[in-house]
Amino acid sequence: MNGAQSLIRTLADAGVEVCFGNPGTSEMHFVAALDSVGASSAGGHGGPEMRAVLALSEGGVTGAADGYARIAGKPAATLLHLGPGLANGLANLHNARRAFTPVVNVVGDHATYHKKYDAPLESDIEALAGTLNGWVRRSTSPADVGADAAAAVAAAMDPPGRLATLVLPADASWGDGGQVCAPVPPRAAKAVAETTVKSVAEVLRAGEPVALLIGGPACREAGLRAAARVAAATGAKLFVETFPARLERGAGLPNVERLGYLAEQVAFQLDGVRHLVVAGTRAPVSFFAYPGKASDLVPEGTRVHPLAEVGHDVVGALEELAAQVAGDVEAPVQPAGRPELPSGPLTPQNWVEVIGALLPEGAIISDEANTSGLLLPAATAGAPRHDVLTLTGGAIGQGIPVATGAAVAAPDRPVICLESDGSALYTISTLWTQARENLNVTTVLLNNRAYAILRMELQRVGAESSGPKANQLLDLSTPDMDFVRIAEGMGVPASRATTAEELAEQFSRALAEPGPHLIDAHVPPLL
Amino acid sequence: MNGAQSLIRTLADAGVEVCFGNPGTSEMHFVAALDSVGASSAGGHGGPEMRAVLALSEGGVTGAADGYARIAGKPAATLLHLGPGLANGLANLHNARRAFTPVVNVVGDHATYHKKYDAPLESDIEALAGTLNGWVRRSTSPADVGADAAAAVAAAMDPPGRLATLVLPADASWGDGGQVCAPVPPRAAKAVAETTVKSVAEVLRAGEPVALLIGGPACREAGLRAAARVAAATGAKLFVETFPARLERGAGLPNVERLGYLAEQVAFQLDGVRHLVVAGTRAPVSFFAYPGKASDLVPEGTRVHPLAEVGHDVVGALEELAAQVAGDVEAPVQPAGRPELPSGPLTPQNWVEVIGALLPEGAIISDEANTSGLLLPAATAGAPRHDVLTLTGGAIGQGIPVATGAAVAAPDRPVICLESDGSALYTISTLWTQARENLNVTTVLLNNRAYAILRMELQRVGAESSGPKANQLLDLSTPDMDFVRIAEGMGVPASRATTAEELAEQFSRALAEPGPHLIDAHVPPLL
Repeated sequence: MNGAQSLIRTLADAGVEVCFGNPGTSEMHFVAALDSVGASSAGGHGGPEMRAVLALSEGGVTGAADGYARIAGKPAATLLHLGPGLANGLANLHNARRAFTPVVNVVGDHATYHKKYDAPLESDIEALAGTLNGWVRRSTSPADVGADAAAAVAAAMDPPGRLATLVLPADASWGDGGQVCAPVPPRAAKAVAETTVKSVAEVLRAGEPVALLIGGPACREAGLRAAARVAAATGAKLFVETFPARLERGAGLPNVERLGYLAEQVAFQLDGVRHLVVAGTRAPVSFFAYPGKASDLVPEGTRVHPLAEVGHDVVGALEELAAQVAGDVEAPVQPAGRPELPSGPLTPQNWVEVIGALLPEGAIISDEANTSGLLLPAATAGAPRHDVLTLTGGAIGQGIPVATGAAVAAPDRPVICLESDGSALYTISTLWTQARENLNVTTVLLNNRAYAILRMELQRVGAESSGPKANQLLDLSTPDMDFVRIAEGMGVPASRATTAEELAEQFSRALAEPGPHLIDAHVPPLL
Repeated sequence: MNGAQSLIRTLADAGVEVCFGNPGTSEMHFVAALDSVGASSAGGHGGPEMRAVLALSEGGVTGAADGYARIAGKPAATLLHLGPGLANGLANLHNARRAFTPVVNVVGDHATYHKKYDAPLESDIEALAGTLNGWVRRSTSPADVGADAAAAVAAAMDPPGRLATLVLPADASWGDGGQVCAPVPPRAAKAVAETTVKSVAEVLRAGEPVALLIGGPACREAGLRAAARVAAATGAKLFVETFPARLERGAGLPNVERLGYLAEQVAFQLDGVRHLVVAGTRAPVSFFAYPGKASDLVPEGTRVHPLAEVGHDVVGALEELAAQVAGDVEAPVQPAGRPELPSGPLTPQNWVEVIGALLPEGAIISDEANTSGLLLPAATAGAPRHDVLTLTGGAIGQGIPVATGAAVAAPDRPVICLESDGSALYTISTLWTQARENLNVTTVLLNNRAYAILRMELQRVGAESSGPKANQLLDLSTPDMDFVRIAEGMGVPASRATTAEELAEQFSRALAEPGPHLIDAHVPPLL
């Protein structure tokens, strides 16, 4: 057994059964080993197999691994080609890091003895991986690869979840002596101290205005219910973090408002709040700095009370808090209800109503609609239960890959990708992976022919001019992009919608047919 | 004058007159300043303007800056959005680094006081930039920006050329007190010691078999002529480095063979050579390691004699060497001559003959044809003079961006982009930039429906199996990609060629019309 075989066997035994990859020469033994490891293949060593999914750029690879783990609750592997392959995947790994998504990156490298020659693809892989603030290790021999892989999975699953990067020299991959390593049990999330819960309960009982801000695992049903009970019983305002990795929503669940992206929104939401209880996330800060405006979005005079740090048992802490302050109070839940199907030319107001009217049961929404999606939460609040996966790290180009990975994780659930024209172009080739794997992803491409958010930001930062050169850098209309042709060129059936009726008809049809679809929805900018 | 205005004024005064960009919120003051700096604009401060070219992903931005500088001989600026923007551009910066291309990267960052809040887009920009082994500086105040920019340009132009990265905090950009800084003259290339030239001349005169390997600036006319004179006078074999940044070729110039990509080729080329004289590059090493094969491609018993190190005055050294050993011997040059126009279904053999038969005068070839292009050099040797820009660092996805930048640098020259299907997908959105800027780029997309080079490498690394999973990871045919639709979707007129006649007709038509074109050329794999 060579190192690569021991790696794949160890990963699959630890539950890592999907590898999103874009390999090169230094990864060829890993690629070859995919066929020799697994119960059903000739010469297989028994145990689960590893499914390999090709993406045509590394942003697709890493974003898919993020989307997969957000839904599967366990990591996928990525297979990346040396420093440049990792570099291409870093932006979506940045988003995954901010989502606390577990991912096991396998980065192939030159053979150990080849490094000193500074061959053309030589670069500092550890320095690149180090920027992810996760776990990084280099395997030094075939015999170590299995144990390193098991450690990588455990590191990735260490609460709250993080990026583990294993650098795999080609000779550690091809050399004999690979040893399969049993899974290393990941650590459980740290319990929150009773005294912490008690002191937060006292804050809630004191009668001053309180807001409760929840994030991370608390954005799923158990956490939402506990937090909603606390809010209902105490009168506290309740908010979800601005960009949750996975937010459960829809009829029958508490409908919790997200904290706004703009500082102005947050100031409005937290107006008058004297105590901010934070669970599973951090106190809010401004996404960007703006001249003369505060970066810290906690209102002056408001005290912050951490209930559960990121990575601690936030759901357990919320449930204990609810037990102390909410008694028998039930969580208020969102009643079922959908918007009427609208008609007329598409607008930022009506396209979300189409989605709200037609969202299928159990949908997963990969949301990178950006400015076009501002009105989405209201339109989908009473729709059937669904998950929303958001752009956690601000590095655009996430939506299509995350949808792709989510669809691999949940082949029986409809995946809806709400994507912006500007963002789509970073990782557009991931559409091809959806076609190859016949994934049930319906992409609604909100085509407003601009980096609309930057038009807004250009004014918000107080930039003095907005002349022709500046406008040209924010414009995507010359030439217009035809996403129908682009999608079809990558094997994804596509259509164009300019009215609400067309969007409704095409969206329904896409959901009814297996495999991926794209709708090029011509929606004018919100502002 | 704010920091951003002083930056643009300083860059333009130093000859940096083009900025390829993909900005975000933290770069909005730079964007706004583009309109306020320049002789012709209202409120302009006089002097040359900066042209801003938008690319829809950062691989397009950085690859275009590389292509621009290879042709213009001076750097462009890039404008990148924080760590993730830089990360997306790193692969093509890696190629630029290996090409010794001067580039000035401007990476926007959060305002200095905002860093500590660890906002979602916060990441370690210096660590990412540090992997490029170039010049890195962070501006700390608006008053420093101008001087930092001037230093960045000088650093980029420092022989042999390198990447200079200036991190620009938003408050250094928007703050008042910007000061324009006069250009800092770059250093000249270091002269080679007379004794070095003399000792190489003695090696050449000693009568033992010698090969001369040249690279860098020696791949242009003066260096090629001097080296060819040396070879003609002494009987030395003459080679150009495997992946030159810019190689001048065609009728009337010495036709110098490139050292092969495969170790087997290099062994054949250097067979029997006792002395290897190296000028402007390094002694050859294997691109990748292979089990049981040497990484150092200098044959055993062959002595290496460095004539001119990378960054030294390599052309001057070659001319001095020619003066000492070649007397009046002229450089043999390639006679004019083109292949006949072939006919029949496209093959790896005949498509290069179409290019050779029709290559226009003064063309620039951006060559990422990979395995499909193996027979190109022979077919174009006697074509009119042209430049070839190659994939210097091995990070694929370079061809379309480099062609884009070259066309910006030389609007009056025809740019031919020879691109592979697999490589194209990394940076495909750069076609849109070609359409927006109406650049004269003709892309011949060699569509062989596979990562063909990896099929070859899978065998060469001695991987034991080649089962269905492995094959699936190297296959691009399910589904087939339709590059005609993809290109048209991005505003580039496109057509499909399956025969040599169709390719010839479409190639001629594309060259005759202004603006970009793409030909989806269905060429089967070479192997």
